[in-house]
Amino acid sequence: MDKELSLQKDLFSRIKELDGTRHAHLYVAFVVCGVCVGQVLQCYTDMLITCRINRENPTCFQLIDCKDDNCTTHVLAIINDKTTEDRNMLMNEATNILVRCGLIPKKHGELFSVSRGWCEDSLCVVDRNAAPFFGVTSVGVHLNCFVRTEHGNVEVWMARRASTKSKYPSKWDPTVAGGLPVGMGLFENVIKEAEEEAGIPNTMVTIGAKSAGVLSQMTCCSDGSCLKQSLYFIWDMEVDKDFIPHPADGEVDKFERWSVETLESEVRQGERLRPAMRLVATDFLIRHGVITPDREPQLVKIQSAMHQDRYIFPHKGAIDSGASEN
Amino acid sequence: MDKELSLQKDLFSRIKELDGTRHAHLYVAFVVCGVCVGQVLQCYTDMLITCRINRENPTCFQLIDCKDDNCTTHVLAIINDKTTEDRNMLMNEATNILVRCGLIPKKHGELFSVSRGWCEDSLCVVDRNAAPFFGVTSVGVHLNCFVRTEHGNVEVWMARRASTKSKYPSKWDPTVAGGLPVGMGLFENVIKEAEEEAGIPNTMVTIGAKSAGVLSQMTCCSDGSCLKQSLYFIWDMEVDKDFIPHPADGEVDKFERWSVETLESEVRQGERLRPAMRLVATDFLIRHGVITPDREPQLVKIQSAMHQDRYIFPHKGAIDSGASEN
Repeated sequence: MDKELSLQKDLFSRIKELDGTRHAHLYVAFVVCGVCVGQVLQCYTDMLITCRINRENPTCFQLIDCKDDNCTTHVLAIINDKTTEDRNMLMNEATNILVRCGLIPKKHGELFSVSRGWCEDSLCVVDRNAAPFFGVTSVGVHLNCFVRTEHGNVEVWMARRASTKSKYPSKWDPTVAGGLPVGMGLFENVIKEAEEEAGIPNTMVTIGAKSAGVLSQMTCCSDGSCLKQSLYFIWDMEVDKDFIPHPADGEVDKFERWSVETLESEVRQGERLRPAMRLVATDFLIRHGVITPDREPQLVKIQSAMHQDRYIFPHKGAIDSGASEN
Repeated sequence: MDKELSLQKDLFSRIKELDGTRHAHLYVAFVVCGVCVGQVLQCYTDMLITCRINRENPTCFQLIDCKDDNCTTHVLAIINDKTTEDRNMLMNEATNILVRCGLIPKKHGELFSVSRGWCEDSLCVVDRNAAPFFGVTSVGVHLNCFVRTEHGNVEVWMARRASTKSKYPSKWDPTVAGGLPVGMGLFENVIKEAEEEAGIPNTMVTIGAKSAGVLSQMTCCSDGSCLKQSLYFIWDMEVDKDFIPHPADGEVDKFERWSVETLESEVRQGERLRPAMRLVATDFLIRHGVITPDREPQLVKIQSAMHQDRYIFPHKGAIDSGASEN
């Protein structure tokens, strides 16, 4: 195998490195109102099934055997879930337990929605710090500002994260990257983040940024914890050759224009990108004709791995989650 | 639910209509050299397991119980597969049986490769007319020629298939659409088809067409037969406002420039497109910022459904396909 081919083969492995589904055997599906909304590490289930809204009420999480075709799997379900308010109180109590056990230092205060997936009905809420323990879907927006040079080549504005960031300091992101706050529209968030992070005027983004789809993958921490579906919503914006983004809110310490060759080299073999941004960069390179099927034999698998739907846990059986079993 | 939202919801259903995985229970995995290369309707397996290379040899297809986690599934495997030549002879004999049973009228003569997927090693060959019975991967190339109008709107050149075509006469395709002949490169095929079907000069395609990725879905005929992985390799080419493609080889009877609104209306509720081209058109509309996540709540599921990897059949267990069991 020649060197080029061996590097090409590697891209799929690098995309798969980010895929946490290999840790799925450590988890049980987390079911609310009969719907799989996430997953919980098996080692936490004993702790959670002691959880009750108050002393008068029975325990509310239950570990249930679930027959699916010929297989039996376990799911952790909220059984005593008569109302949304009950479920919210229960998730709050579960968060208290996570704090007491030292798994999270404290509550964050901001609440995340628990639902089957993006744009699905919210079934309850959970504190932001506890959300990863339940596999709650994570949503980010990403803007690639790019330039076409005189020779027709594409170059991309990349952002180096501030060295003071708690996660991935000094690693490189697309021009703009941000998490989605509750209650905000996706494009609205792109416009806001572009101004905050890169000083790009609202009107420029409103007119120039074009939605380019969504990437989805089941990601987790390197130790296998915090398995969740991550959604990366993508926008591209072609900008003038003389356009320069500038750090505005301190999240980014510098911007740099990269050739697509540099970007490709980074996704294939570099360590400068924030690891999850390999997906966003690879998608950009595929959509812009840089990574092509004639050069990349693994393209089908790579694109499939970047568009996973969340439901990796077999769970078709009906669970009567409305009735208490106690 | 307002009318717009109900139409939006419908797009996922229309993409899923093309997805044949709902028929998977009618099939068994087809395994060669221990690798799943396709699937065969269960009702054909009895016929195939009588198949042998010649009278002196034992039967070569075997129906095997395969333990996968706690589930038992059946796979049809070629057991007596010592050499590629043996396997080729066996697939040829299987094709003779399909002809004798009237399932195909005659051999085609052109041979298709049988492999785990696109760009994987070929394990044997099968006659083109028999390939669908074994779920052999189907590969097509697709070119979207598009124009940016003075107002910045995108319009796409669409091709109406000739009324004499045996499949989907008079339905609409992207500007250029063609199957991949054995031994030809993908982009090489785009260049060839663009000239043959639409009279577009080679140099124009070589310079202007940009690869934009691949779509993959398990498709089947409307009666549930011929389940296979279909790969749609996509190119976009921006063309001048005065560019007009013209029918060259009789495959297309006319070209027409459609607004993206017309194209979106077709994928959402029309019947003019060749059904599988809904995927290609939807992908174009997503990549070009027409179908956006703020307007399309099902976007994650839609993109996931358009990027399935082929292996829908549980098959992890090792099958010692090298040794005869007879």
